[in-house]
Amino acid sequence: MNEALERLVHSIALPDEEAMRLAAAHLDQLTKPPGSLGKLESLTIRAAGITGQPKPELSRKAVVVMAADHGVCEEGVSAYPAEVTPQMLLNMLAGGAAVNVFARQAGADVICVDMGVNADVSHPSLLSRKIRKGTANMAKGPAMTREEAEKAILLGAAIADEACDQGIQLFVTGELGIGNTTASAAVACALTGLEPSLLVGRGTGVDNEGLNRKTAAVQQALSVNQPNREDAIDVLMKVGGLEIAGMAGLILGAAARRCPVVLDGFISGAAALAASRLCPASLDYMLASHVSGEKGHVVLLEILGLEPMLQLDMRLGEGTGGVLSLHLLDSACAVMHEMATFASAGVSDGTGVPEV
Amino acid sequence: MNEALERLVHSIALPDEEAMRLAAAHLDQLTKPPGSLGKLESLTIRAAGITGQPKPELSRKAVVVMAADHGVCEEGVSAYPAEVTPQMLLNMLAGGAAVNVFARQAGADVICVDMGVNADVSHPSLLSRKIRKGTANMAKGPAMTREEAEKAILLGAAIADEACDQGIQLFVTGELGIGNTTASAAVACALTGLEPSLLVGRGTGVDNEGLNRKTAAVQQALSVNQPNREDAIDVLMKVGGLEIAGMAGLILGAAARRCPVVLDGFISGAAALAASRLCPASLDYMLASHVSGEKGHVVLLEILGLEPMLQLDMRLGEGTGGVLSLHLLDSACAVMHEMATFASAGVSDGTGVPEV
Repeated sequence: MNEALERLVHSIALPDEEAMRLAAAHLDQLTKPPGSLGKLESLTIRAAGITGQPKPELSRKAVVVMAADHGVCEEGVSAYPAEVTPQMLLNMLAGGAAVNVFARQAGADVICVDMGVNADVSHPSLLSRKIRKGTANMAKGPAMTREEAEKAILLGAAIADEACDQGIQLFVTGELGIGNTTASAAVACALTGLEPSLLVGRGTGVDNEGLNRKTAAVQQALSVNQPNREDAIDVLMKVGGLEIAGMAGLILGAAARRCPVVLDGFISGAAALAASRLCPASLDYMLASHVSGEKGHVVLLEILGLEPMLQLDMRLGEGTGGVLSLHLLDSACAVMHEMATFASAGVSDGTGVPEV
Repeated sequence: MNEALERLVHSIALPDEEAMRLAAAHLDQLTKPPGSLGKLESLTIRAAGITGQPKPELSRKAVVVMAADHGVCEEGVSAYPAEVTPQMLLNMLAGGAAVNVFARQAGADVICVDMGVNADVSHPSLLSRKIRKGTANMAKGPAMTREEAEKAILLGAAIADEACDQGIQLFVTGELGIGNTTASAAVACALTGLEPSLLVGRGTGVDNEGLNRKTAAVQQALSVNQPNREDAIDVLMKVGGLEIAGMAGLILGAAARRCPVVLDGFISGAAALAASRLCPASLDYMLASHVSGEKGHVVLLEILGLEPMLQLDMRLGEGTGGVLSLHLLDSACAVMHEMATFASAGVSDGTGVPEV
């Protein structure tokens, strides 16, 4: 790990336990049976620990969509041609993608980042952080160099840092990149030792033959590159993606600034797993949103120990599932500020002690 | 079934298949892999069928919270004393309950209805439709008369009708009533023939002894009253509740006006099951929101054939889970109005046919 990355990882603090205790105590005074808001209560308590605020406020939110291309597309692993990455990036910059629609509904910013699209894309709103024009085909050798992987992580962290300076209080991880469920499956296999058959899914919708090609490509990438399971950077450089490394960095950067990071689907899960290996403390800053229709996602959530709130069978990526969950987080925070207590509302709390 | 109820039931039409076909066709032109928005796509198609609009707009929403008391509380079935029903109703009218917080977040109205609270409650915003001051103890005899059950259903339907006249386009079913998970379990057992042990849960949080008392009370109510499984009104009058019958009516009334009805938790599920028995066509108008932590809810959703979107382990009632799902519905509708098509955005749809 290079020095800057070492510094980043060491700047991630533990959650604020006193804020969590105060949040839990306040929740139990509100006019509802204790614990009856289920996951929203644990979410609020976690958000209190992350932000250090017993009654967290997370009004300024952003979904960061990191885009990049994948050399492994040569192996016929996707239902869509690689040109779709820049086409969809432009669509997103124009506000026409699903994530734009959901972000408008959620009151979140969409920050698009070119981490390594295999085309020249320019747009006034695009953050250009292109490290190279797509990865090399991991089925034939390393996807990128170690320096490129480290650079992608640090650029991702810097994006979180800059957005925090501009007032963003919460991040959603998003991505765009034809072929990136293949790279994510390879990263997840390399970091967990699980078989490709457990983690390779249909992505945007490959047929059975495509699924076989995809599984074979992951298998081959692992066997050609022999990534070191104990070294997340080695894994990211050999079988990862520029956006996946960038997302891992975004998570670490957000955690370093005490901001919650809402994870989207399978690709976010692979990036989160890599981040958690680089810095286990970063796990405390991650919130799960949905469980997607992509096969391996549920496996990754279990490994991360995160429970999703939404079950929508979505498999779109872009950060869409994460953004859809923001309303739940808003509602959980609003409870802390707006709900009456048993005492203030004159409601019996069921303990037999009369309330004033 | 009395004549007015007969008329209501016969006024519920089938969904508009042409609107559903057009909605599905539009969804497949949008810049995303076909079907990749999962349940949001089926939701949109169903909403199109319900409203008859290929691109549904459901901006004016209301959660209707029906409150009533339950004589069965004498049997020690709840963790809270019966006085909590009027206390919480006043808290809700003052805007301090969880449902108020979530409804403000969702931009939905909260309509509170006194269907049979065992106290005199008055408030300028309260719809007073009190049929009687709570039900009789169903463990000893019928909860209410057949006339009262029919009246509750018709009053519920009339509330939907009036709210539609005032511009409401979508309803969420909510409720408030200490003891009402006990009555709901009894209604569900009576309508399905399932054992109380499968449908009786901890409600607001009874301990093991309370759970045993609750199961015994349901068992006794079924054995004392012998409700007729083929006659939902018989079931509602003997082992139901004034708010449960009212909610069944609300569902039918909303369906008669072609409005979607979002179901909340277990009590809503029991009311929905009763409504579906009174009029099977009403099922097409029901949308599931969350699966709650109350044991029997998942069973009822399966019987209704509805798939929940949220998994939050909530067990609060009031309509809270239903209201939390409205943002998903808003997002699903916004997709139809705001997302770019493959053609308009110049994105390849993966079929190899060049897009203009």
